Amino acid sequence: MLAPGATIGILGGGQLARMLALAAAGLGYRIHIYAPEADSPARDVSAAFTKAAYEDERALQRFAAEVDIVTYEFENVPAVTAHFLEKLRPLRPGAEALVATQDRLVEKRFFNALGLVTAPFQPVENGGELARAVAQIGRPSILKSRRLGYDGKGQAMIREGSDIGAIYRAMGSPPCILEGVVNFVREISIVAARTEQGAFAAYEPCENTHEHHILARTVVPATLRPETAQKAKDYVHAIADALDYVGVLAVEMFVVEDYHTKEERLIINEMAPRVHNSGHWTQGGAQTSQFEQHIRAICGLPLGATARLGDIVMINLIGEAVETWAEHLADPDALLQLYGKRETRPGRKMGHVTKVVRR
Amino acid sequence: MLAPGATIGILGGGQLARMLALAAAGLGYRIHIYAPEADSPARDVSAAFTKAAYEDERALQRFAAEVDIVTYEFENVPAVTAHFLEKLRPLRPGAEALVATQDRLVEKRFFNALGLVTAPFQPVENGGELARAVAQIGRPSILKSRRLGYDGKGQAMIREGSDIGAIYRAMGSPPCILEGVVNFVREISIVAARTEQGAFAAYEPCENTHEHHILARTVVPATLRPETAQKAKDYVHAIADALDYVGVLAVEMFVVEDYHTKEERLIINEMAPRVHNSGHWTQGGAQTSQFEQHIRAICGLPLGATARLGDIVMINLIGEAVETWAEHLADPDALLQLYGKRETRPGRKMGHVTKVVRR
Repeated sequence: MLAPGATIGILGGGQLARMLALAAAGLGYRIHIYAPEADSPARDVSAAFTKAAYEDERALQRFAAEVDIVTYEFENVPAVTAHFLEKLRPLRPGAEALVATQDRLVEKRFFNALGLVTAPFQPVENGGELARAVAQIGRPSILKSRRLGYDGKGQAMIREGSDIGAIYRAMGSPPCILEGVVNFVREISIVAARTEQGAFAAYEPCENTHEHHILARTVVPATLRPETAQKAKDYVHAIADALDYVGVLAVEMFVVEDYHTKEERLIINEMAPRVHNSGHWTQGGAQTSQFEQHIRAICGLPLGATARLGDIVMINLIGEAVETWAEHLADPDALLQLYGKRETRPGRKMGHVTKVVRR
Repeated sequence: MLAPGATIGILGGGQLARMLALAAAGLGYRIHIYAPEADSPARDVSAAFTKAAYEDERALQRFAAEVDIVTYEFENVPAVTAHFLEKLRPLRPGAEALVATQDRLVEKRFFNALGLVTAPFQPVENGGELARAVAQIGRPSILKSRRLGYDGKGQAMIREGSDIGAIYRAMGSPPCILEGVVNFVREISIVAARTEQGAFAAYEPCENTHEHHILARTVVPATLRPETAQKAKDYVHAIADALDYVGVLAVEMFVVEDYHTKEERLIINEMAPRVHNSGHWTQGGAQTSQFEQHIRAICGLPLGATARLGDIVMINLIGEAVETWAEHLADPDALLQLYGKRETRPGRKMGHVTKVVRR
């Protein structure tokens, strides 16, 4: 167990690192941020900051010497960085979880190996494989870069009449997967935590709405049958156990409904080995925030209670939408969180607001 | 109105400044701490830090140039510092509130001028005046230094048989007041906020228990008749209006009960022009924490809702008591807050835990 007073190193300095830092401070931990960008939202609330590339081994070595444990706010930390740090300090979640989620092909096969259903997919290494994959999966389908995708980056829709060769070349012809389109009734996610000792705690399923591939809104409770909700939690429990996972993780799923029987089925979309935007509502909307929960999990503290404190709507403030902050401050049920980013850009996550209607 | 993104300067770097910094970060503000001690709990969570004496005008000037507004975490900021800064930047609460609370004699006379009842008191400038004051007020009574007292420092009890001259000399013979002892049934406080435009919002009365002159425990709701609770809020409203107060303030009161009629009366003890230990429960125990409320008030934002979210017990973790942190983490209803202080000392406030039992 890592007692309060210790220093937690975080790779990445964005809003997730910032909110982790704020939660860690509440429990008396010091935070050291490691990020390549000098202008990092987390820097302003952290005790120490290293600006260096993820490949800079001397900087990583110095960073490791100054912290007691290392975690990260995003899954695109280079695997080599993770392996390097893991030899010097406990890395939580471990490099295995990171590697499992950095490659969409590896990730999907991992889900399937656990018996979990995903959208149909085919690996694509070149134009010929793409043509065969499209023939097999059909149109519409989605071509996704295996690596470095988030918020819709590195994705393209293959429709009737699409010039698939042009689309693939426009993406830079990277290793990809072609995914079948799931005709879902809603998207949900499960945010959960697991400790090294195997303790597991999930929040209630979150119902998510995306706009332009970016999460726009999360509603809790999700419209979901209780048995489906339980199944969703069980799946994430199985995923976390299989990875010997330590920390908070999030798994996004599609809910499909049988047209006749209305029976609900869950299709696993993807996972994030970190705190997740769809769990932001837990700040003030649940007994323990996902940020504190992550700190508890990686430090080996008991997990906190995950009960929901009301009916929740979380809205992301993206780009210019942040200018609505004053109206949220005037709403007694709204909890506003701004990320302190100096520049507003279209599509940039600037903050969020959670409305908690208590029963 | 000072919009998110601006920089708030805080005089003092202790746990109150730390929790103000955390709350301000949530609203997207940057924090610059000014404190004479390098080892300041607030430093670890703030964007900028100036280590300098409160009398260092060049350092104050540089500090003022780098912030948009100045506030403080403690009432013993030298008045000359407050006046100096007030010429350069908005100081909230203003120097007037600071000056009114730095001198117990001025403070008591201010309460009386508003028609509020205090314990009987007499000013004491020398040994002769002390003897006359004791003759008038009687024993037991309490000799209090007019300035720089907190957590029972600069106080001495005058009992039957006490050598009052020796007691006064042991205190260093400063200007004092002698106060009558109030035979109270309980101690309460009101934590409230006021904006420049005169908006006012009070939290429910808090019932406080002190041990060795330090707050040990706060319970909300206080055992109090509704009309007494309302009266307590009205008194604080009057105090805040009279001072043109901007920010969070706390007023401590004694509740005395008529032996026969059981009628409750309120006797004003003292006020603090800042967030207050008896309001720590509002972190997670109220819709808006006192720390966010202070930031809202000084920045001219709408005040947040003050509703209580459950039945509250806040316990200070003083000195070695901080070692109980692990048991609080295992309690699902407990919210633990540790201040990140590197050294545990007897009597030092190391953290607090708030138990919120939701209805």
